[in-house]
This record gives sequence, C-alpha cells and structure tokens, in this order.
Amino acid sequence: MTVRYQLPSDRMPTAWFNAVPSLPEPLAPPLHPGTREPAGPDDLAPLFPMGLIGQEMATEEWIDVPGEVLDILRLWRPTPLVRARRLEEALGTPARIYFKDESVSPAGSHKPNTAVAQAWYNKAEGVTRLTTETGAGQWGSALSFACSLLGMECEVYMVRASYNQKPYRRMLMETWGGTTIPSPSDRTQAGRAILEADPDSPGSLGIAISEAVERAATQDDAHYSLGSVLNHVLLHQTVIGLEAKEQLAMAGEDRVDVVIGSCGGGSNLGGITLPFVPDKKAGADLRLVAVEPQSCPTLTEGRYDYDFGDTAGMTPLLQMYTLGHDFVPPPIHAGGLRYHGDAPIICNLVRNGWMEAVAYPQGKVFEAAIQFARTQGTVPAPETAHAVRAAIDEALAAKEQGQDRVILFNYSGHGLLDLAAYDDFLHGRLGDD
Amino acid sequence: MTVRYQLPSDRMPTAWFNAVPSLPEPLAPPLHPGTREPAGPDDLAPLFPMGLIGQEMATEEWIDVPGEVLDILRLWRPTPLVRARRLEEALGTPARIYFKDESVSPAGSHKPNTAVAQAWYNKAEGVTRLTTETGAGQWGSALSFACSLLGMECEVYMVRASYNQKPYRRMLMETWGGTTIPSPSDRTQAGRAILEADPDSPGSLGIAISEAVERAATQDDAHYSLGSVLNHVLLHQTVIGLEAKEQLAMAGEDRVDVVIGSCGGGSNLGGITLPFVPDKKAGADLRLVAVEPQSCPTLTEGRYDYDFGDTAGMTPLLQMYTLGHDFVPPPIHAGGLRYHGDAPIICNLVRNGWMEAVAYPQGKVFEAAIQFARTQGTVPAPETAHAVRAAIDEALAAKEQGQDRVILFNYSGHGLLDLAAYDDFLHGRLGDD
Repeated sequence: MTVRYQLPSDRMPTAWFNAVPSLPEPLAPPLHPGTREPAGPDDLAPLFPMGLIGQEMATEEWIDVPGEVLDILRLWRPTPLVRARRLEEALGTPARIYFKDESVSPAGSHKPNTAVAQAWYNKAEGVTRLTTETGAGQWGSALSFACSLLGMECEVYMVRASYNQKPYRRMLMETWGGTTIPSPSDRTQAGRAILEADPDSPGSLGIAISEAVERAATQDDAHYSLGSVLNHVLLHQTVIGLEAKEQLAMAGEDRVDVVIGSCGGGSNLGGITLPFVPDKKAGADLRLVAVEPQSCPTLTEGRYDYDFGDTAGMTPLLQMYTLGHDFVPPPIHAGGLRYHGDAPIICNLVRNGWMEAVAYPQGKVFEAAIQFARTQGTVPAPETAHAVRAAIDEALAAKEQGQDRVILFNYSGHGLLDLAAYDDFLHGRLGDD
Repeated sequence: MTVRYQLPSDRMPTAWFNAVPSLPEPLAPPLHPGTREPAGPDDLAPLFPMGLIGQEMATEEWIDVPGEVLDILRLWRPTPLVRARRLEEALGTPARIYFKDESVSPAGSHKPNTAVAQAWYNKAEGVTRLTTETGAGQWGSALSFACSLLGMECEVYMVRASYNQKPYRRMLMETWGGTTIPSPSDRTQAGRAILEADPDSPGSLGIAISEAVERAATQDDAHYSLGSVLNHVLLHQTVIGLEAKEQLAMAGEDRVDVVIGSCGGGSNLGGITLPFVPDKKAGADLRLVAVEPQSCPTLTEGRYDYDFGDTAGMTPLLQMYTLGHDFVPPPIHAGGLRYHGDAPIICNLVRNGWMEAVAYPQGKVFEAAIQFARTQGTVPAPETAHAVRAAIDEALAAKEQGQDRVILFNYSGHGLLDLAAYDDFLHGRLGDD
C-alpha cells in the first residue's frame, strides 16, 4: 500500500511563489527604526544583498530559483508527502492525514530551503561571510550547512545558555565549518557592554541578534542573514506547499480541507500554506491553521501593531501581531516558536480571517508527539509537534462529525537533537506552559 | 541535474535474497557450545522463533517478505540511491560515486530492516516481548522502534558506561516505549554475579548479551533478538542491494566496478553486497570490499576458526574470522564496528577471495567524514564513515589511473547522535586507533 508520494527530481518547483499580490489587503511597509518612515532598499543594504532586498519588496507572483540553488536543493528535494495511515488507524478516524516531510534535509528541518538561497544571493554580490544569531541552533546549523556547500564563512552568535546546555547543534555547525560564538561575546560593542555589566550573562536571542547585526554592519565582506519573519524567507519556503499540491494530486486527492503549520516566526507555516492562498482567494472551502505555543500566544493573544523585530529596537518596525518586543517567553522546549511577533504576511492572513490560529500547552503537544512516534515511527521536533497536535485534533473532530476530512500538515523537522525534551516529558519533568 | 534515484513504492523488493546457495563453498554449521556438535533448530528454539530459525538454515534462494513487514518498511523504503556529484567534483575524479542512503529510516540506520522482520516473526508465534543488548544504542533503538509499531515490549540491556555517557539513544528507545536497563543489572543471575564482585562495574557488550539471553531463555513470553552476524539478519538486509541494483540501472549504469560496506558484524555490508554475489559467481569483473577499523581488524588480521559469538562463551560457535571472543577493542567512536568476529557468510566470501577487506585508523575515517559532510551536506555515522573513506580512496585511485570507475557504497546511517565524536576529531581529542 503506497503511503509515500515522491515527485521525480525534474518536477521540483523551479520558481518560488510570491503570495504578496494575493493577500487580502496590501502589506504595510516596514518602518525605519529611527525616522519611523517607510524603509527603502538603501536602509536594508548594509545588511542584505540587493537580490534579497528585491525579493523582500517584490510584487510579481513568480520568481525563478537560480540554477545553482536548485542543484543544492536537489540533494534532498523534492521531499516526500506521506499519508499517515498508521496514525489514522490508531485514531480510528475517517480523515486522511498527509504530512510534508521537511525533516529529510541535511540539517533536519525546512530551514535550509532559505539558507541556501540567502547564501547564494549574498555570494553572487561578493559577500564572503554571513553572520546570524541562533537560539537552540536550528537556524545556525542550516546556515552553516549552506555556507559550507557554497564555500562561504558562517559566524553564528549562539545564546550562551544554549551554547552550554545544547552542545549537539554547536557541534553540527562546527562539523560544517561554521564558527559558533557564545553570545554575549567580546567581538562586538554590544556584547562587550553586556559583559561589562554582567560577566556571567547567559545571553538572549535579542543580544545575539544585536551582535550578528553589528558584525555585518561594520564589516565590508559580511552580511546578515535571518531565518524567518521576512517576506523573502517565506518566499523561499513556498517550495514546500508547491510540491505538496502536486503530491496530493498524485495521491488522488482533488481537494484539501485543512492545511496546518506550527508558527514561531512563520516560515514553515508560510511555506506550506502560501501556495494555497490563491485557492482561498478564489473562494475554496479550505482552512489554513497556524499552531502556536500557549506560552507565546502571538497570533491568539497579541495586539496587531508596528513593533521591532528584536529586543533592543535596532531593526525596522514591522506590522504584526506582537506580545511586545520586550516579551520574554518561558523556556519551553519548542525554542523555535519563542518569538514575540510573526511574519507580516502571516499576520495579514490572520487579521483578515483567511487563516485561523490555535494555541496549545506543551504537555498536550508532547502527548501528540509520542503518539506520532509510536505509530508512524519518526520523532518530531518539539516545534513540529505543535502541528501534529492540531492535525490529530482535526482528525478526531472529523471522526466525531463522521466527516471525510483531508488534512495536510508540515512536518517541519525531526527531534533527534531534541531528545532531552522527550526525556523530560516521559519522566514528568515538563512544565505546565 | 538528477542526483537522487528513487524507486516507486510498488518496486520495493517483496522477497529477500538468500546468498547461502551461491557462496563459493558450503557454510559450516554452527556448533553447540556444550557438545560442540552441529546445532539444530531445537538448540536455537529457546531464543528464536521457528520462522527465523528456518531462515537461518534456509537453502532456497528467495524468501517472501510478509505483507505486514512490507507495510512497515514502506514507511521509509525504497531508500534513495544518490550520486555523490559534489564529492566527485571536490575529488576531481572521473569515477562515478553512488551511495545507498539507509540513514532515512526512523532510527537513522539500516538496522530497522531486520528489526521489523524479527519482531514480526516473533509476534506471529505469540511472543510478546523481545530482549536484546546494545552498546552505543543503534540496535536497541531500532528494535524499540520495531516493537513499538508492532505493539510488543522491548527490553534492552545497555552497557552501563554507554547508558551514562550516551543518553540520547537511551532517550530515543524510551520515546518508542522501550525499557532500557543499564547492564550489569540485578534482573539476572549473570548481572547480579557481576555486581556482587564489582558494584561499580561499567559493564561490557559480553555481559549485556548474557543478561538479554538469560532473560529470554528463562521467560516464556520473551525471545532474544540479535542485530547482526546471523544468516537471517543478513538476509533481511538484502533489500538494500536489491534496490540499489535497480536504481543503478535507473541511473543508466550497465555495470558497477566496486561495492563497499563497513563491517562490524557484517549486516550492512551483507545487505549491500550479497545481491551481487551471483554476478561474482558468474564471473563479473566486480570487486566487493569490506571496510573495518584498524583497531578491530577481524577480516584483515583475525584467524579463521570456530569461536563463540559472545564473551562468556554461552552462544553457539560460528566459523569466522575472529580476534578471539575475549578480545576487547579500544573504545573507538565507531562502536558498531567493535566486534571480535564477523558474519560467517561474510567470512566465507573473504576466505574464498570473492571479497576484499581493508582497515583504516579512525583519524583518516573522520577526515573522510568531514569532507563528505562539507560537500554532500549530510553527516555520516562513524561506522558509515569507514565506507566513505574507502569510496574516496577508490575514487582517487581511479583518478590516478585515469579510470572510469563506478563505485557504490552503503551509507548505513547518519551521525546526528554521534556528534560528540566529530567534536573530538575537530578539537584534536581523537586517539590514534
């Protein structure tokens, strides 16, 4: 019985889908942090190459993927679409559950889809080094991977507490030749200022961003790279949903009822859902669902407003749902979902009723993750497990209503480097958040 | 440019290939450890189900894979065959390098191919619990995975030193519902005897085998399961080579010049090479290559003799290359290759000149692993890196000789739970073994 739908290499998408022209209302522009006037390309040029700035502001619907980017993506793409038959059977549901398996990339998540593209556009404009920040290390490892394959240097500022507690992703970055620096560091003014006040500072994502941005802004050969939130990042992730649509057709489905993704900054969610936005616009009876942690409920409880992307207030302001740029989420295991805001594109969809949002506490998320691992076999990342939880609840609702529901969710990454979280759950050490 | 060759689900092999009838000389029978007479099915019945004992002694060439086993294997099979073009370019070789990617299984290695089959045959005969031993945890996690999907219990005796130092695979086993017991334990006479003499014993694979075997032999509902060496284990792994042959044809290759696998007990090596034995028998100009660690050089320096499978001398004696059942290999990072003997089928091939063997020190193995990770993107397991080293050396030899060589190796597993080994290598802490 076929459960995995595999597109041949030559049917991998060769253009990204830009959802911006299809959004329910025009995207509000980013504002300059100093003047609070709309920010233009020149404001972004110290940090990003023009190739990516152009994509950030693009209005055309399709943007070609460069050939060398395609060649690298083909190391693991197209990714499989999998029918979760064993999970369906365990739930006794009439629903058909499909997931798009982005965990098969070398870094184990969807993040390399944009890391490779970003590194390539930087290299094309003569940049030889990228700087970035990372919390638990998923984004830092994806960018290290991409830089490794393109012969670039990668400088990752990793929150010191994670650097000490989670050595595996640091080791993975170094295996790919990335330089991992515990943040705060003495390499930047921002870092030195923090260390002067508190030599034992555990660091924070906000501090790490400041360090990575400062390094990029003050060095000619370096640029900065961001793994989520921005339009061009979501653009690069649309290969996920584009492939999934073709694969659903291969599986004999002529419709999908609900498309689900977990949401931190919004990149994997955008990747799976944005190619369905034109269907939504055309009036399709199709639900798009964002799943977030109850302890960081941006879409379900945030206010819709302009806010900074970072803690220190150095980045442009974006219109989004936000808990405030000084909000510090509890240290839940789904580190990739601990962000105070969301991608403006995602917020635009939620604001206008084209996307729903739901929030779960992590205990219920890990229950779903364990059920998935023991029926389907693979262990989801804690972030991904949020989408698994929502997919299971959709399937159970379909059972209760006797409905033939077609469910698609994004399996954004595996949990092999997050097993300590499972250990905490199985031994009753998980918090209530 | 296509680099991944993917068979559709319906072309996954539905029968295993039994190489025994094609071997250069008849396999010598196992001997009973007490009488030293040839062991029969009844001697093995306390530990194994008759379905597997039948396969251990089978003389037919093809054995059907049960439907439910096929259904579970299809969760990740057929696995991709990948052309390592980026590695070829980095080496500047005219050789074409292909690898069979067995790392895509839920447990991250080839081990589930036999774990699922073994669990199924046990379940079919009413066994509800399997016991086994594990060193670093690869086999224990594969069997926990298989038992989880078949609704069976799994009891894994894990060498205490590994249990304490390598918690991630223990956590993975527990995520699948397996019970992991540090060995020596107080659950068995064997364990209690050791603990009485030395309450702080770090354990050994030999002690863990004794505990797992004792539990299976003394409890009606339990059987024992072994992850390598035996004929039926290699049989279950032949799906690897059977798929690879079809995929090489898809890639347009009408021949392969050298087929490579790393060798500990011989199961992944057997999986990739045994389907090529009939070609060898028919006189094909084809080399089969076993790669082992220099610190545990069974095939290259062992004596060909009957020896016990375990340290304590409780198992049947097998005819094989052995370093002696009391040989204790240095604690190299490729824990899965630290075994004093090899599968009798593999030894038969080497003894008769149908297979070559080569040994490498681990420094050269990790050099190859890093080169692979930085060109192809994925991080190989230390065991797998032995095959990577040999494939690179074959490609370099082809370059020197200006030869158009077609190389196939088994990418038996990923190294995401072995990153501490990479960390040791990158920071100069690796021993010379």
